[in-house]
Amino acid sequence: MSRGKFYHPEIERMSRKALRDLQNRRLRWQVRRCLAKSEFYREKFKKAGIKASHIKTVDDLVHIPVVTKQELREEQVKHPPFGRYTVAPSKDWRELHPSTGTTGTPVNTIWSERDVENITEVTARTMWSFGVRPGDIIQNGFSYGLWVAGMSTHYAGERIGGLVIPIGASMTGRQVEYMLNPGSTVLLSTPSFALHIAENLRERGVSPEQLPLRLGCFGGEGGTETQATRRKIEEGLGIDAYDYYGLAEIGPTFASECTAKAGLHLAEDHYLIEILNPDTEERCAEGEMGVLVITHLSREATPMLRYWTNDYARLDTSRCSCGRTHGRAIGGILGRADDMVIYRGAKFYPVQVEKVVRSYREVGDEFLIELTRDESSYTDVCTVVCECLSADTDRASLEQRLRKDLREELLVTPEIRIEPFGTLERTTFKAKRILDKRPK
Amino acid sequence: MSRGKFYHPEIERMSRKALRDLQNRRLRWQVRRCLAKSEFYREKFKKAGIKASHIKTVDDLVHIPVVTKQELREEQVKHPPFGRYTVAPSKDWRELHPSTGTTGTPVNTIWSERDVENITEVTARTMWSFGVRPGDIIQNGFSYGLWVAGMSTHYAGERIGGLVIPIGASMTGRQVEYMLNPGSTVLLSTPSFALHIAENLRERGVSPEQLPLRLGCFGGEGGTETQATRRKIEEGLGIDAYDYYGLAEIGPTFASECTAKAGLHLAEDHYLIEILNPDTEERCAEGEMGVLVITHLSREATPMLRYWTNDYARLDTSRCSCGRTHGRAIGGILGRADDMVIYRGAKFYPVQVEKVVRSYREVGDEFLIELTRDESSYTDVCTVVCECLSADTDRASLEQRLRKDLREELLVTPEIRIEPFGTLERTTFKAKRILDKRPK
Repeated sequence: MSRGKFYHPEIERMSRKALRDLQNRRLRWQVRRCLAKSEFYREKFKKAGIKASHIKTVDDLVHIPVVTKQELREEQVKHPPFGRYTVAPSKDWRELHPSTGTTGTPVNTIWSERDVENITEVTARTMWSFGVRPGDIIQNGFSYGLWVAGMSTHYAGERIGGLVIPIGASMTGRQVEYMLNPGSTVLLSTPSFALHIAENLRERGVSPEQLPLRLGCFGGEGGTETQATRRKIEEGLGIDAYDYYGLAEIGPTFASECTAKAGLHLAEDHYLIEILNPDTEERCAEGEMGVLVITHLSREATPMLRYWTNDYARLDTSRCSCGRTHGRAIGGILGRADDMVIYRGAKFYPVQVEKVVRSYREVGDEFLIELTRDESSYTDVCTVVCECLSADTDRASLEQRLRKDLREELLVTPEIRIEPFGTLERTTFKAKRILDKRPK
Repeated sequence: MSRGKFYHPEIERMSRKALRDLQNRRLRWQVRRCLAKSEFYREKFKKAGIKASHIKTVDDLVHIPVVTKQELREEQVKHPPFGRYTVAPSKDWRELHPSTGTTGTPVNTIWSERDVENITEVTARTMWSFGVRPGDIIQNGFSYGLWVAGMSTHYAGERIGGLVIPIGASMTGRQVEYMLNPGSTVLLSTPSFALHIAENLRERGVSPEQLPLRLGCFGGEGGTETQATRRKIEEGLGIDAYDYYGLAEIGPTFASECTAKAGLHLAEDHYLIEILNPDTEERCAEGEMGVLVITHLSREATPMLRYWTNDYARLDTSRCSCGRTHGRAIGGILGRADDMVIYRGAKFYPVQVEKVVRSYREVGDEFLIELTRDESSYTDVCTVVCECLSADTDRASLEQRLRKDLREELLVTPEIRIEPFGTLERTTFKAKRILDKRPK
């Protein structure tokens, strides 16, 4: 196992031209092996009327139909247990991980031995890029076990040469105790759990200055890309906070900000990035918002060719001020296609509500978008529920200001409901921000 | 990383004489480094009036005072965060694991990089010895994260070349689903969780023959060493069940049965075993029951010299029918010193109650030993609570038979209380068998 510095200028600063050459080579290898071993991909190619020889470069990718999560789910049901898209021989399989699957049965993903190695390498690289170093005490508040982020960051934290506290996404009180003793220097978790820990610190009267904690990275759900949320985490824990991205089917943790905080660097030597127009599936121009579609360039066991993530992003491939040339998702993940709220003709995402709510000092970090049906008028009602930190606040004025700021952000005016602090559910995992109570 | 066969005859079948020579060498190395780096051990040696040069062989160990868990706890409180018994330099530290600590604050143990490697090697060896092989689908139902067994068996399962399902000690329904699809071949968990899973199978009407499950190993609490419990697990899951042993301060999983099921083989090249008389702390003769005391021969980060496990065992160093020469704890762990119940002049352990309760077909697997005080007579009352599987059972006759069998086993007669099935708490972790309700 390689140790030491996890910054590889020869890869992370390579010219876009050289990177594209590497991607083309790896893509041809991946397409060949997928077609040789996977009936799933063979069918897909046949249906589209294409052959392996048609895919010579990244530009030829557009001929391959995208893969959706629903398609993987159906494939696994029809061809149990893993569908017909496992490509590495089963003797090389090492770990099984399901998607967290908030809807439907989870999709099982497999990591081969080399996949574990590559995942560890890429994760160590992302962690290095935002400043994790040998000797750091890394409090790993991502869930362990079946969920992907806990394991990958655990492996990477050790690989970098840190001391990992494998605490997982629970036990807030104990999280705080470890921050005080032995005194973790790095925290990894979801942003909502980080806010929850910060809340616990405040309740105990522990000031962030008392903590050796230096930085944290937060992913698994939206939050860190929102400046207001990031500031709350940074002030609440007294740290630098970085945004982190991954998803079970693709890679647990293959994208993160560097210390420049200038967008999520995507590990483009292992993951080929496309941004597609959600309606036409055509490629977006650089900087244009669209759906992130990812192709595995090195994944062995369950490789994805053009996986439709359902996440919105804008790509920037200009060199970052840190010197890295791999593309960045500017502003992080900008929303999820299935998290979109359609309300009175306007479309918006929870992340936009978050941005507004968390810019208020007198309002708690939790919020909920409640959708109900007004049976008398047959119209939908969208209510933003949030918490008031103090009982002394003038609620009428607060409601008025929130309504105005939300209208500006969402281009539509939701109802506002302000509850006492502590009313909304706290979660240590992925916070659910939309509660749809409309009759089905 | 070495792969392939995890049976090393040159180590596991070495002569007792060669093993003793190896232990003597490793012991001298360990004592020297502990005294060079640890103020904790220096003080201990000074108090006992001994020097490193006095410890030449395993026989000289008797001069070193034992280390208790309470002592480690106090040391960590007095000298935070880890006490003064960390020996490897902090740059080599990789994982922090606390004891599960049912009483008092947990004791933090550290694994260095080499410790992780040795733990993985020894665990892979134990898993190989009861029949885990490359290609096995290993459902890891031990808790992940801070708890030790999940991580060590995860590492070892991958090292052997299996596919690990890192499910952890929860989600009974999902455990059953994975047993059906993809069809795990190996289950690792606590014995009580295994019984709980078997119960769930029965409730779903799934017969063990439908499962590809082949074998399981069960540790983290007593159970598997009891023939009645083992039989229930084996029949309930349709497998061969093996006993497994470890503890946070010493090693997560360093002892297991081989396929001969002739006692727990202890990895004596890494762990030096002594059996001491609990009253005099003198060494017991071979085969005599006493407290297991363990010295780390290779552990780097937080090495233990003579750790008093509080667990009772009998050691047999004769060659096993499998050919291995490393000593075996015959009959497994025979009880815990702090689990001992003193009742009307008799001493007994929960494992003895378990043995009786689980020999009854009409009684559930869960049981509880309840201690109360009869305030009128100032006497203690010990009640064994268990569950009746069917409402049709003749409770009076069942009570009578249970009382008689318990009297024979415990040499004292407890009260019996039979509850309806499902009354007692199910746990996925370590079952608590003694409920002491006496006024303190």
